[in-house]
Amino acid sequence: MKKLLVANRGEIALRIMRSAKEMGIQTVAVYSEADRLSLHVRYADEAVCIGAAPSNESYLVAEKIIEACKITGAEAIHPGYGFLSENAVFARKVIEAGLIFIGPSPEAIEIMGNKLAAKAAAMRYNIPMVPGTETAITDVAEAKRRAAEVGFPILIKAAAGGGGKGMRIVDTAEDFDEQMKLAVSEATSAFGDGSVFIERYVSSPRHIEIQVLGDSHGNIIHLFERECSVQRRHQKVIEEAPSSVLTPEIRERMGKCAVDVARSVNYTNAGTVEFILDENLDFYFLEMNTRLQVEHPVTEMITGIDLVKEQIRIARGEALRFKQEELRINGHAIELRVYAEDPANNFLPDIGTLRTYRLPNGPGIRVDDGFEEGMEVPIYYDPMIAKLIVYAADRKEAVDRMIRAIDEYTVSGVATTLAFGKFVMQHEAFRSGDFDTHFVQKYFKPELLVHENEDEARIAAIIAVKWLNEHRKQFIQPDSSNTSSDWVKNRKDY
Amino acid sequence: MKKLLVANRGEIALRIMRSAKEMGIQTVAVYSEADRLSLHVRYADEAVCIGAAPSNESYLVAEKIIEACKITGAEAIHPGYGFLSENAVFARKVIEAGLIFIGPSPEAIEIMGNKLAAKAAAMRYNIPMVPGTETAITDVAEAKRRAAEVGFPILIKAAAGGGGKGMRIVDTAEDFDEQMKLAVSEATSAFGDGSVFIERYVSSPRHIEIQVLGDSHGNIIHLFERECSVQRRHQKVIEEAPSSVLTPEIRERMGKCAVDVARSVNYTNAGTVEFILDENLDFYFLEMNTRLQVEHPVTEMITGIDLVKEQIRIARGEALRFKQEELRINGHAIELRVYAEDPANNFLPDIGTLRTYRLPNGPGIRVDDGFEEGMEVPIYYDPMIAKLIVYAADRKEAVDRMIRAIDEYTVSGVATTLAFGKFVMQHEAFRSGDFDTHFVQKYFKPELLVHENEDEARIAAIIAVKWLNEHRKQFIQPDSSNTSSDWVKNRKDY
Repeated sequence: MKKLLVANRGEIALRIMRSAKEMGIQTVAVYSEADRLSLHVRYADEAVCIGAAPSNESYLVAEKIIEACKITGAEAIHPGYGFLSENAVFARKVIEAGLIFIGPSPEAIEIMGNKLAAKAAAMRYNIPMVPGTETAITDVAEAKRRAAEVGFPILIKAAAGGGGKGMRIVDTAEDFDEQMKLAVSEATSAFGDGSVFIERYVSSPRHIEIQVLGDSHGNIIHLFERECSVQRRHQKVIEEAPSSVLTPEIRERMGKCAVDVARSVNYTNAGTVEFILDENLDFYFLEMNTRLQVEHPVTEMITGIDLVKEQIRIARGEALRFKQEELRINGHAIELRVYAEDPANNFLPDIGTLRTYRLPNGPGIRVDDGFEEGMEVPIYYDPMIAKLIVYAADRKEAVDRMIRAIDEYTVSGVATTLAFGKFVMQHEAFRSGDFDTHFVQKYFKPELLVHENEDEARIAAIIAVKWLNEHRKQFIQPDSSNTSSDWVKNRKDY
Repeated sequence: MKKLLVANRGEIALRIMRSAKEMGIQTVAVYSEADRLSLHVRYADEAVCIGAAPSNESYLVAEKIIEACKITGAEAIHPGYGFLSENAVFARKVIEAGLIFIGPSPEAIEIMGNKLAAKAAAMRYNIPMVPGTETAITDVAEAKRRAAEVGFPILIKAAAGGGGKGMRIVDTAEDFDEQMKLAVSEATSAFGDGSVFIERYVSSPRHIEIQVLGDSHGNIIHLFERECSVQRRHQKVIEEAPSSVLTPEIRERMGKCAVDVARSVNYTNAGTVEFILDENLDFYFLEMNTRLQVEHPVTEMITGIDLVKEQIRIARGEALRFKQEELRINGHAIELRVYAEDPANNFLPDIGTLRTYRLPNGPGIRVDDGFEEGMEVPIYYDPMIAKLIVYAADRKEAVDRMIRAIDEYTVSGVATTLAFGKFVMQHEAFRSGDFDTHFVQKYFKPELLVHENEDEARIAAIIAVKWLNEHRKQFIQPDSSNTSSDWVKNRKDY
């Protein structure tokens, strides 16, 4: 493989190209008109414009991407995450065009993309599932009977759903009929498919997922877990590895289950098996993501393994270079997704220009981003600016390091999740490890954010520089009487 | 310890403050007039100006630094490296002022600061020394007799010297008298002390040093080695850990020797024992540096231990938190010192303003620096801009990652050692691990540097942006006939 096309944008495109570059592989970027000046375009050896800003005119058009490979002579496509990364039709077209798709087989994508098929596959390996219906149903009476068997509270979940859409919690049997009808009609209008599952409702769930790698020679291993329980709007915002709650014994069992889930579809390449963990530390299979995960860096930090490079090696047909028993966890890593979102306004996107953009640095800090000062966060795509990842010897040190990193990270022009991240790091529930996916709704209120007003800070800094320049002479006079500089932090000069 | 003063500047001041901050310790910066706008001043909670730019009016004035502690209420001083860090008189004054000196005892600094005393201390533990005189001599006849015993080629070395000053290699007995006289007179005028050592000259030496940590309870451990054989002007420029040449058996013996050297002076806090390794992999004690080393990050990367935090814990009287047998090496780390120096002009300092200054990022990269775009590299101090550190699973991956990082690191306005670093990383001698401290004189010629002319690249980028803006419409037209954009890399647009 001499040339690789990355069918994505932003931080993940850049991140993939970095690994390719280290492997001596040439890179090709594709970009929409809106992204023409973005870093992934600048970083690539070659770049092909594939259309207008809306994704369905560019990043989602399989034909254009495959055409870009032909133009540039790229032999392989890395899809990143999102866009076409879990699209079996795309994977199949790539392969049919004689190109290498850096990901699992279209068949594995297809099965895992369908909740029912995924469950059926996993069931063959006795993977624990949340008690509930094994097949999707639409009939209210049957659903009610099954709900009573499972025991209230129960969860009604659209079979074709995702991201929290079409989900309803039902506390008692009395409420069931009405909620079921609403769920079915919601699912029908949202997904064109009204069938639902009935499940036991886990009241204090933790989201824990296992990273797996499978090669084309039948070897499958896992790279331990990531915990992603801190979520806003049902979407991850802070992830860590290892989880603060897993015991070595549960970790081993969960890892084995994840490998079995992967084996059930002869999985190749990198994938993630998601579990829900309940109050009793019992875990249940949720789903498998058949791509590189946003939060993959925390796994890289604690294992020392570059997952993108392993993906490329697997796609080239190489056998895995390590055995399960050789892998171990070193230290602790935490990732904060830095979104252009306003935590004070229900985490709604806050698009604009990055007027100030300075990164943290020093020991144990990694930033995966796709921006520079002065760039605009475009309105067309996911508003993630960066992933701020910290690594340290243990969890406490990692949490303290994250606070330090957040304090060093300077962004103005858009609201971000940085201050929210600091709130979480300072919160006793997170520090103690005693939290679940309801963390945000339980503990977070916008008024709890310590807001350092960036504009004020900038103005103060400019005045300070002027003042310092005017008064520079007296700085070396210990007897200077001017000591009223408290407004620049609480500095003392003599 | 609630408040810590850092008696240093630049990257190391910032790096120390970062660890202090993570430990919840307030920080105080001291600064010279020339450094008033520098990052370490901005980063600290408080800052005290201690005088004019020349170091002997500010960073070298013990009284001003101790006074700054009294003004701010700082209870401890971290001296960093250079300046007063290995000054026993300063350490003693700090302690007498009732403050904590974050470093070893003044007695240990004193002994190790004197080559004779250091050798005498180490000798008690049977540490291997380069064959030669055990005491300094000035008498030519005696020196010649000893030289004949040791066997030519020999090295004449000023007892009070350092950094290559007052050193002479003598190949044959015939040349001895003249060279000895020159060495004595050179040493007398440079150091006010004409006494010299006679030593066997190691023709293919590698510089390998061991990091040690000692607490105030008598525990001393080592954190493996760093190899610093790539040097220019007898000074380190690239360091790595582990060394590519040590066997586990030699590593263990060398580590034990280093611990013994430290034990010979009841060493506390962080220190480094330097060895010279010859062609037969025999090693000899060189000296001990009684401070944090510039290249300490590579040790932090492979052990996961924050050395500055350990220094602070030791200074607080805490016992070491780990035992020798618990430590192990994970992966491989390389550091490149990014100096404002011109490799094409004998590595002479090239001072100026950082017109462009963009850092590399992504997996396995750490930059410790003290600059931002637009800042000036001041003429008064060491011209190091940054330390670029990479970490990866193995040495080959680390070397490839360093190349990628160097390519991403964009500096214009001053010449730097970045392109030189790339030359080293691409050189077969370095890649294979078969090199010694003569690497630069053996292999490097300025004309071998691949110079990407930064000004040209900048102009090209500006034109490219203009061109892209003018032609944006046609970007989404696959049939555009304008494909003459090869001058912006070799991009293809359609």
